[in-house]
Amino acid sequence: MKILDFRSDTVTLPTKEMLEAMTHAKLGDDVYGDDETINRLELLAAEKIGKEAALFVPSGTMGNLIAVMAHTTPGQEIILEESCHIYLYEVAGIARLAGVQARTIPGINGLPPLEAIKNAVRQENIHFPETGLISLESTHNMSGGMTLPLKEMASIYHFAKEKGIPVHLDGARLFNAAKHLQVEAKEITRYTDSVMFCLSKGLSAPVGSILAGTQDFIVKARKLRKMLGGGMRQAGVIAAAGIVALEGMVDRLAEDHVNALLLAKELNSIKGVSVDLEKVHSNIINVDFYETGFKAPGLASKMKDKGLLVNPRNDRVIRFVTHRGVGKEEVASAVEVVKEILKG
Amino acid sequence: MKILDFRSDTVTLPTKEMLEAMTHAKLGDDVYGDDETINRLELLAAEKIGKEAALFVPSGTMGNLIAVMAHTTPGQEIILEESCHIYLYEVAGIARLAGVQARTIPGINGLPPLEAIKNAVRQENIHFPETGLISLESTHNMSGGMTLPLKEMASIYHFAKEKGIPVHLDGARLFNAAKHLQVEAKEITRYTDSVMFCLSKGLSAPVGSILAGTQDFIVKARKLRKMLGGGMRQAGVIAAAGIVALEGMVDRLAEDHVNALLLAKELNSIKGVSVDLEKVHSNIINVDFYETGFKAPGLASKMKDKGLLVNPRNDRVIRFVTHRGVGKEEVASAVEVVKEILKG
Amino acid sequence: MKILDFRSDTVTLPTKEMLEAMTHAKLGDDVYGDDETINRLELLAAEKIGKEAALFVPSGTMGNLIAVMAHTTPGQEIILEESCHIYLYEVAGIARLAGVQARTIPGINGLPPLEAIKNAVRQENIHFPETGLISLESTHNMSGGMTLPLKEMASIYHFAKEKGIPVHLDGARLFNAAKHLQVEAKEITRYTDSVMFCLSKGLSAPVGSILAGTQDFIVKARKLRKMLGGGMRQAGVIAAAGIVALEGMVDRLAEDHVNALLLAKELNSIKGVSVDLEKVHSNIINVDFYETGFKAPGLASKMKDKGLLVNPRNDRVIRFVTHRGVGKEEVASAVEVVKEILKG
Amino acid sequence: MKILDFRSDTVTLPTKEMLEAMTHAKLGDDVYGDDETINRLELLAAEKIGKEAALFVPSGTMGNLIAVMAHTTPGQEIILEESCHIYLYEVAGIARLAGVQARTIPGINGLPPLEAIKNAVRQENIHFPETGLISLESTHNMSGGMTLPLKEMASIYHFAKEKGIPVHLDGARLFNAAKHLQVEAKEITRYTDSVMFCLSKGLSAPVGSILAGTQDFIVKARKLRKMLGGGMRQAGVIAAAGIVALEGMVDRLAEDHVNALLLAKELNSIKGVSVDLEKVHSNIINVDFYETGFKAPGLASKMKDKGLLVNPRNDRVIRFVTHRGVGKEEVASAVEVVKEILKG
Repeated sequence: MKILDFRSDTVTLPTKEMLEAMTHAKLGDDVYGDDETINRLELLAAEKIGKEAALFVPSGTMGNLIAVMAHTTPGQEIILEESCHIYLYEVAGIARLAGVQARTIPGINGLPPLEAIKNAVRQENIHFPETGLISLESTHNMSGGMTLPLKEMASIYHFAKEKGIPVHLDGARLFNAAKHLQVEAKEITRYTDSVMFCLSKGLSAPVGSILAGTQDFIVKARKLRKMLGGGMRQAGVIAAAGIVALEGMVDRLAEDHVNALLLAKELNSIKGVSVDLEKVHSNIINVDFYETGFKAPGLASKMKDKGLLVNPRNDRVIRFVTHRGVGKEEVASAVEVVKEILKG
Repeated sequence: MKILDFRSDTVTLPTKEMLEAMTHAKLGDDVYGDDETINRLELLAAEKIGKEAALFVPSGTMGNLIAVMAHTTPGQEIILEESCHIYLYEVAGIARLAGVQARTIPGINGLPPLEAIKNAVRQENIHFPETGLISLESTHNMSGGMTLPLKEMASIYHFAKEKGIPVHLDGARLFNAAKHLQVEAKEITRYTDSVMFCLSKGLSAPVGSILAGTQDFIVKARKLRKMLGGGMRQAGVIAAAGIVALEGMVDRLAEDHVNALLLAKELNSIKGVSVDLEKVHSNIINVDFYETGFKAPGLASKMKDKGLLVNPRNDRVIRFVTHRGVGKEEVASAVEVVKEILKG
Repeated sequence: MKILDFRSDTVTLPTKEMLEAMTHAKLGDDVYGDDETINRLELLAAEKIGKEAALFVPSGTMGNLIAVMAHTTPGQEIILEESCHIYLYEVAGIARLAGVQARTIPGINGLPPLEAIKNAVRQENIHFPETGLISLESTHNMSGGMTLPLKEMASIYHFAKEKGIPVHLDGARLFNAAKHLQVEAKEITRYTDSVMFCLSKGLSAPVGSILAGTQDFIVKARKLRKMLGGGMRQAGVIAAAGIVALEGMVDRLAEDHVNALLLAKELNSIKGVSVDLEKVHSNIINVDFYETGFKAPGLASKMKDKGLLVNPRNDRVIRFVTHRGVGKEEVASAVEVVKEILKG
Repeated sequence: MKILDFRSDTVTLPTKEMLEAMTHAKLGDDVYGDDETINRLELLAAEKIGKEAALFVPSGTMGNLIAVMAHTTPGQEIILEESCHIYLYEVAGIARLAGVQARTIPGINGLPPLEAIKNAVRQENIHFPETGLISLESTHNMSGGMTLPLKEMASIYHFAKEKGIPVHLDGARLFNAAKHLQVEAKEITRYTDSVMFCLSKGLSAPVGSILAGTQDFIVKARKLRKMLGGGMRQAGVIAAAGIVALEGMVDRLAEDHVNALLLAKELNSIKGVSVDLEKVHSNIINVDFYETGFKAPGLASKMKDKGLLVNPRNDRVIRFVTHRGVGKEEVASAVEVVKEILKG
């Protein structure tokens, strides 16, 4: 049985070119700053997204956590959209490890409205924590890979600057957002003080993410990475793949978006299955099976039996993610599997 | 100028009887367990609210903090109504000191709906923190002193028990809630594993609150109190007033409720001023000045100039709190002040 | 049976004058800054020890904890003498709540040698936490109430200033130290950035301690006190006793020192019992029973049966503390009890 | 100029075989448990050191940190030898992130004496944190790579078991210890509940360490790894090198030991230079230059100018570490460089 893996773009395998690059990378001990490949990746990444400096980290979760720790001091509050990844899927590290309180705001397609942010910022009062950070996410996973509009990001950023509050972007899929908005990534990140993006996921590197910001921020981040145990030795072996990802894989994200839209349309045309096509911005789609009368977890389980791997969001919605490992053909097969099950 | 202090029932001064009791209290070193007066208060309090054991703490904030720390381990998530005091007014201690993540739910009159709680409880998943506590608040400050209905509290409690999740009640004004519901306090606390209530506030003791729960819980709480620096020496001097508060001041809360309703009605009858009378359960009222065209902070400041002290909630709402220090006469005077200002 | 309580000076009961003052204190809500008595105590205390500002806290433990939190950021290291109270007897609050690492140094009579401090200060290195605080203790409890010499304190302070590291003094018994050194307390505290001293203990107030430092430091401390739950309402009732303690009880500490020395000499003259008389600086004595062949805990238990209360330090040493509740007569009785037991 | 890198065995580069293995590894998403290579490495590692289960982590620092977090709860105390790596070189993560207090004990050649451990374990007392862990280190870095004797480890372990306290081993160089003791690694780890060892360092893998213990412990550890951001995707690319390291590189550590001893003898024979040859157990030597009249940092700097890289420990001692990258020839060259400088 052929496996159709639409669970996540995190399942992408490294390309041949990546494996090749890993074999020939110039290595050194990165804790001593001696790993040329890491150094090259960090420079390249910083340049690509218009930040002063960048840091390689083993995961997006660590990149976000370090950002929160570097921007805030324990006991502060951070403003987050209420369904963002940092709040829901990162094991509450921001509470236990960073010691900050999450002040959550309901978003519209992943965007926390500026007015709500303004209301959430704390005044000076002995009962109140200080607001230490505003964190955004684009593309926004839970809303089905939607991008935050640049204009809104700009407004939030300018308000934050007035208030002296830093802005972080969880840009795990930053280049997907840039692709959808048809801008350079740096047109997005100019409205944030720091950004994390993943080399794994759609870009297909096996391991690793980048955290970027000012020089001073990265100095702090580097030490926090050491504290968390994210300082690695000959990390250039992984960074080599990251360079390939950054230099050669960004453009191909467009394919994933095309395939996602194709999948969305096909599924949406099935009776009882619904996808809001206007909300398909990138490579994630939320598919609502409510009208079919089936529960999403049960459906997902049946799909799995037929080789189609997906993650249910809740009782009615299943998430499908496109990536390098699933092309037009796999999309067609996936649609077939869904039809079959619903018929059955 | 006579001061009309409607800011909070925390401003109540101790009664003569309390001062008398403080002077004659049998004292000892409470860290050694030698203070008879403290011991007596703790027994009395536990008995009064139907818990195995109780602990005297210097403030409601510390009582709530200890409860969170004793029920959870750092890295867990706790479910809270989104405008509750612990989340908004306790300096994010639950994040910095207890290391837990606040999972907030919009409430209806302070009550987080059971369905929302059910959805917020975490499943087993490597990305998720565990749900370590559900915390309720009654009377609920931000909703204007409303009480949680017993039936709903019972449903939440039974659900929590099924899931093995403890329930804490921030009952800073527990006896106000009991008065409104016309039940014994223990009829409320039977639906919680632990409860904090204040001896200060309406009960008029100068200092102190009680945290209560099982014997084991209080053993943990006592050690956490020591860690936080809440262990005091001849604390019986304060506890003596607490005993008077608990034995003699509970019934008089009814007066505060009557006065609050009176004030609410009077204010509501002023053009442009609005109070939802159905929501006046206890001694706190939220008064909406929106239709007057004035901003609440500006109004509050004008009131202050005329000796009427209040706290604005936001741009349109001002909170008034009744207590032993403000009777019918002060209510009448306060109404006069408001009328005058709005006329001017 | 008359109780001879030599466990600690924390057992001292408030004086009549204190109880009187508590009854007549002008009160207000200290969280709103309205309590005149608290305000007066804080001013008086700051003035008395030559600091810009002071804060009333419910316990010495909270005062020390707030000092550590206000001076440092989580993840820093603090330098402490290895048998100091903060490290051994404050429930590891500095680790759990302040998130700092204790870097401990063996002391000589409670004094960490300057050379050892110099070696313990961290260089810049990605593996190292920053050194955020040096904390001293005088009189030093574990060494038997010894005082730190002013000259050594000055050297440590000047070194710390060069390095930009703040210095805190756990001066729970600051006025005992001043009495022994025959200087004003402010001659000691000039070599520290912050100091905590207790109004309870020898000064006999029922509850409370003072934390003092710069204006900015106290602003931070006040907010941290709120977070920890140490903000109290009509705290003036306790502060009133604190004022009496500070104004009227400091000079009488000399008596406790005289009695401690008397007790030390008498015990030292008993065969097998040994006290180093040169080390008796204040009101605490460490009495070594090793040569008697008895274990300290067993002895302490026998003493208790005869009404003599003491705390064993370890298997051979018992601590005796003198205070307002035990005068010459009680010293004589205590010596009798010890003799009797050793004879038996 | 040829570089002679004696700074650390962390600088070792991956072997050809490792790079080969990395290229052909079967990969999957390890967060979903789908990476066969990681799974194989974890099984192999657990088996090799006689533990139920193992977890791949990006660094030794993270392995130790997770161990501390999994064994303890914040607010506990852990017993450590005072110059151990966890305490001195891991950025105080155990304080900030794990929230535990370090209770340090001076060691003899890295071994904290059992008697001192017994004295450090806390009794039940409201002032005391609980003792949550005893952590050992072997080989012990700061003492110059010395191993803990098995008999002493056994005694500590048995005492700990009596007390119900877990024991962790920082075995970053566990296989060096085993080589010196001429036992299987599992003969060492049987006296610990958990162990961390590095695949990088002498074993030459580019990245990664292993944490091992019971099944339950590793379940907890896996979640903590996710929280810290150590969960990686196609981590099999690195694990492949780890398998080669574990299967093929253990035996060659003997060479490093031979070379270290050779270097030690040669340096010791230089006038003014001293190495305690009895203490040379493994691949680290502490070389004392005190008698030469030169300061270690200055010497190290001169060595660097001549291509010899080393790390000074303090003003008199320089650490030399042997590894796969420095053989007999490099040892000879290093000795020449030292001689030259001291002559000059």
